[in-house]
Amino acid sequence: MAHLDPFFKQVDSLQDSFIDRLREAVAIPSISSEDDRREDVIKMGHWLAAQIRALGGTVEIRELGQQPGHEHLVLPPVLLGRYGDDPKKKNVLIYGHYDVQPARKTDGWNTEPFELHVDEKGRMFGRGSTDDKGPVLGWLNAIEAHQKAGIELPVNLIMCFEGMEENGSEGLDDTIRAEAKKFFKDADVVCISDNYWLGTEKPCLTYGVRGCNYYSLEVSGPGADLHSGVYGGMTHEPMTDLIHLMNSFVDSRGKILIKGIDDLVAPLSKEEDALYPPIAFTMNDLHEGLGSETSIYDNKEDSLKHKMRYPSLSLHGIEGAFATPGAKTVIPAKVTGKFSIRTVPNMEIDDVTALVEKHVNEEFAKLKSKNKMKFKVMHVGKWWVEDPNHPNYTGAAKAVERVFGVKPDMTREGGSIPVTLTFQSELKKSVLLLPMGSSTDGAHSINEKLDKRNYIEGTKLLGAYLHYVAEELKQ
Amino acid sequence: MAHLDPFFKQVDSLQDSFIDRLREAVAIPSISSEDDRREDVIKMGHWLAAQIRALGGTVEIRELGQQPGHEHLVLPPVLLGRYGDDPKKKNVLIYGHYDVQPARKTDGWNTEPFELHVDEKGRMFGRGSTDDKGPVLGWLNAIEAHQKAGIELPVNLIMCFEGMEENGSEGLDDTIRAEAKKFFKDADVVCISDNYWLGTEKPCLTYGVRGCNYYSLEVSGPGADLHSGVYGGMTHEPMTDLIHLMNSFVDSRGKILIKGIDDLVAPLSKEEDALYPPIAFTMNDLHEGLGSETSIYDNKEDSLKHKMRYPSLSLHGIEGAFATPGAKTVIPAKVTGKFSIRTVPNMEIDDVTALVEKHVNEEFAKLKSKNKMKFKVMHVGKWWVEDPNHPNYTGAAKAVERVFGVKPDMTREGGSIPVTLTFQSELKKSVLLLPMGSSTDGAHSINEKLDKRNYIEGTKLLGAYLHYVAEELKQ
Repeated sequence: MAHLDPFFKQVDSLQDSFIDRLREAVAIPSISSEDDRREDVIKMGHWLAAQIRALGGTVEIRELGQQPGHEHLVLPPVLLGRYGDDPKKKNVLIYGHYDVQPARKTDGWNTEPFELHVDEKGRMFGRGSTDDKGPVLGWLNAIEAHQKAGIELPVNLIMCFEGMEENGSEGLDDTIRAEAKKFFKDADVVCISDNYWLGTEKPCLTYGVRGCNYYSLEVSGPGADLHSGVYGGMTHEPMTDLIHLMNSFVDSRGKILIKGIDDLVAPLSKEEDALYPPIAFTMNDLHEGLGSETSIYDNKEDSLKHKMRYPSLSLHGIEGAFATPGAKTVIPAKVTGKFSIRTVPNMEIDDVTALVEKHVNEEFAKLKSKNKMKFKVMHVGKWWVEDPNHPNYTGAAKAVERVFGVKPDMTREGGSIPVTLTFQSELKKSVLLLPMGSSTDGAHSINEKLDKRNYIEGTKLLGAYLHYVAEELKQ
Repeated sequence: MAHLDPFFKQVDSLQDSFIDRLREAVAIPSISSEDDRREDVIKMGHWLAAQIRALGGTVEIRELGQQPGHEHLVLPPVLLGRYGDDPKKKNVLIYGHYDVQPARKTDGWNTEPFELHVDEKGRMFGRGSTDDKGPVLGWLNAIEAHQKAGIELPVNLIMCFEGMEENGSEGLDDTIRAEAKKFFKDADVVCISDNYWLGTEKPCLTYGVRGCNYYSLEVSGPGADLHSGVYGGMTHEPMTDLIHLMNSFVDSRGKILIKGIDDLVAPLSKEEDALYPPIAFTMNDLHEGLGSETSIYDNKEDSLKHKMRYPSLSLHGIEGAFATPGAKTVIPAKVTGKFSIRTVPNMEIDDVTALVEKHVNEEFAKLKSKNKMKFKVMHVGKWWVEDPNHPNYTGAAKAVERVFGVKPDMTREGGSIPVTLTFQSELKKSVLLLPMGSSTDGAHSINEKLDKRNYIEGTKLLGAYLHYVAEELKQ
C-alpha cells in the first residue's frame, strides 16, 4: 500500500487547517441536553452538512420533528450523507455525533470550553474536541487529504451523523430501522469512532461492550415514616428487609451470588484468553483510574476480563431512606433499592431477569416478613460483541500497524454503547469501534481535550482503514 | 379527699375561660425553629409569665443570651416560677415548654393552625394545643380553680418553663445544672406533663424512656464516584461492603445480632411483667399507629415490651449513595450508613458502643476488602427509668383513679425525652411523666389537637395529683 504515503504527507501538511476546522466546530456550543442551546445543535448540523458538501459529498438533512415529551423543542436532524457512488466499490457506513455535553467555564475549566485552546504539549482543549467532533472531522480530513494527494477513496462512504447522542439518541434507532433497507442498504461494514484507547500510547479496536440490566426493589410496610423510638422493635422495618435482600446479590470481591448467572456466561476460549496479555494496560493505570488501590485482582489480565467479558453487579443506592447529613431517627416506610448487572455473552436479558426475580422472591420468602416487596426492571440494554477476525477488524488492525507501528489492543468496553447494537441487529453487518482519542481525554468532564497526535495520526488511521478494509473485504 | 369536689366543680364551671386561655396561647405562633418567629417565642414567654403573676405567682425571666451557632438570634428565656412559699409544705417542681413545632395551613391543616378551632366533637385544633401549651396552662387552670374554690394548694410549686424544647432545648440543661442547688434545691419531686396516653381512653403514668445510641459507618474506596460499566467488576465497591455490614446488625424480626447486647438487658421481673397485661392497648391500636399490619408480635404484651423495655435497632439510611428517582449507573465512592440502637436498663452507653465497634471491626475484617471503614458515634442519650412505687407515682395513680375512675396504665416511652434524665441526675429526685393528651393528638403533625375532655379532666388531674402526692410524701 505504497500509495498511502502521499495521503499521509497531505495529512501532515494540512494539519493546521484540520485544527482550524476543529476550532470552528468547537466554537458552536451544540449542547443537546440544554433547551436554549438547541438552535446551536441544529446550526452545528447544518455547518457539518455544508462541510461534507464542500468536499463533494451529498447530504440529506433528515428532520425528526418535535422532541417527544418536550414538544417545544425541535430535534436536531440526522445527516444521511454519501461520498462516492461507485457500484464496484464496497460501502463503509460511518457513524458519529455532532452534539456535545454541557460545559461552563465556571464548572472548573481552565480555558473557555467553546474556544479551542492548544497548549505547548499539543493538547487541544475544548468541549467536543474528542467527543465526538474530532473523530467526525477526522473522516472529512481524510477525504480532503485524499483529494489533495490525488488518491481515489477505495470505498464509498455512507454517513450517519446525529445530534442527540448526549441526550438519549432520540429518534436515531427509528431512523436506522427505517433506513436499514433504504439509505443504508448497501453498507458492507460499519465503523464508529466514538470511544477511547485504554491508555494513552497504544490504539485499540473495540469489538464488544457489556449490556446492562437495571433493577429496582421496593420494600414497603408502615403507612408512613415512623419514629424509631416509638415503633422500633414492634414492626418489621422495610430497610432491614431491603438490606438483607441487597446483601444477597454480590460479595465483597464482586462475585455474583444469584444462582445460575455464572452458568449463562460464555466460556473463555484459548483464542480470546490470548487477547488480554498484550493489552497495553497496567495495574497502575487501573489504580489511577480508580483514584485508589481498591482493585479486586492483583493482575491486569483478571482485571480486564472482569471489566470486559465477565458480568458485574453494582448496588447503586436506596431511594426513600434517610440520605442527607445528620442523624434522623426515622423508620422509613417505603424504600427502593437500585442495582444493576452488567451483562456479557451469552446472558440473554430475560434469562437474567428471570434468575434475579426468582432469587429475590426466594430470599424475601426466607425473611418471613410482613412487609411487601416489589421487584421491577427499570431498563435493559443488551451486550454487543463482534468477531474480531472479521475483515472489518483485520483491515483496521493492519491500518493501525501501518500508522502507529504496533498491533492494536483488542478490547471490549465495560459500559454500553447502544448504537453498536442497533446497527448490528438492523443491518446484520460487522460493526467496528475505532477510537481516535485516549483514556485521558475527559470526554464528559471539565477540560475535555484531544491530543494533536491523536487527531492527526487518527485522521491517517481513518483513511488507511478504508484502504485496508477494502482489501480485506475483497478476499 | 372530699375537699377536692369544690375544686372539680370550679374547673367545670371555668371551662370556657380555660379554653379562652388556651385560645390566647395558641394565637401566639411561638415556633422555636424558625428564625423569624423567634420574637413570637419570646412574646409567648412574657405572656406566660404575666399569667403566672396574675395568679399571684412570682416569675424570674431567666435570659440565656445568644443562640450558640446562630448568634443573630436571642434565646427565649427560661421561666423560673414559684407559687406558694410555705416551708411546711412539700415542693413539686413542674416542667413544661411554651414553644411549638412549625405549622402552615398549606401543610394540610383543615383550619388555621394558630386559631384554636373547637369542633362539635370537642376536639380543639391548633398548633401547641396538646404540645405543650394545653398541659402548661392546665397547671395555671388548677391554681385558678383552687383559688375560686377557696382551697389552699397542698404543696408549693416550683416552675420551670422553657421556650426551646422543639429546637434542642438549647440552654436548658445548663440552667437545670446551675439551679439544682439554688432555685430548684427544695424540690421533693418532679412532674412533667409533656407526653401522651397510649390510647384515647385511659390515662397513663410514664416511668421510663429508652435511650438512643446513634452511629454512622463510612465506607470509602475510589477517589470519586465511578461509572459502573467502566469499573464494575474491577474494584471493591463501598456500597457492597456497607450493605454487608448493615446486614449484620439485626434480623427481620428485630433481633439484634451484635454479640453481647442482649446480655446487658435487665431481666424482666415478675413485678414488671405484671404491669403489661392491664395496659389499655390492643393490636388494633398498634396497627392503626403503624398504618399497616406489619407488627412483629401477635400480642399486645410482647409488642409493648419491645417498645418499652427491650432494645431495638433501626437502619435509617445511607448518605452518599444514589438516593433519588431514576436509574443512575454509579459506583458511589464513599457511603455512610446511619443506624441507631434504642437502649434500655442496664445498657450503659459506652458498653453498647464498645460492643458495636467490636462487631463492626470483626465483620469488616471478614470481608477482606481494600476499602476503608470508619465507625463513628453521632450522638447518644441515656435511657431513663423510675421506681413506679415511689410516692410520686402512687400519688399520681390515686389522682387518676379519683378523676377518671380507673387505675392508670404504667408505661414507658420508646423514644427519648432527655429532660427527664437531666432532672433525675441533677436533682436526684423522682421524676414523673403525667400526660394530659391522647395518642391521637398528632403532636408534631398537621391538625394537632387536644380533646376538651383531656384538657378539662386533665386540669382536674394535675390539681388532684398535688393533693395525693402531698399525702403520699407525708407517709
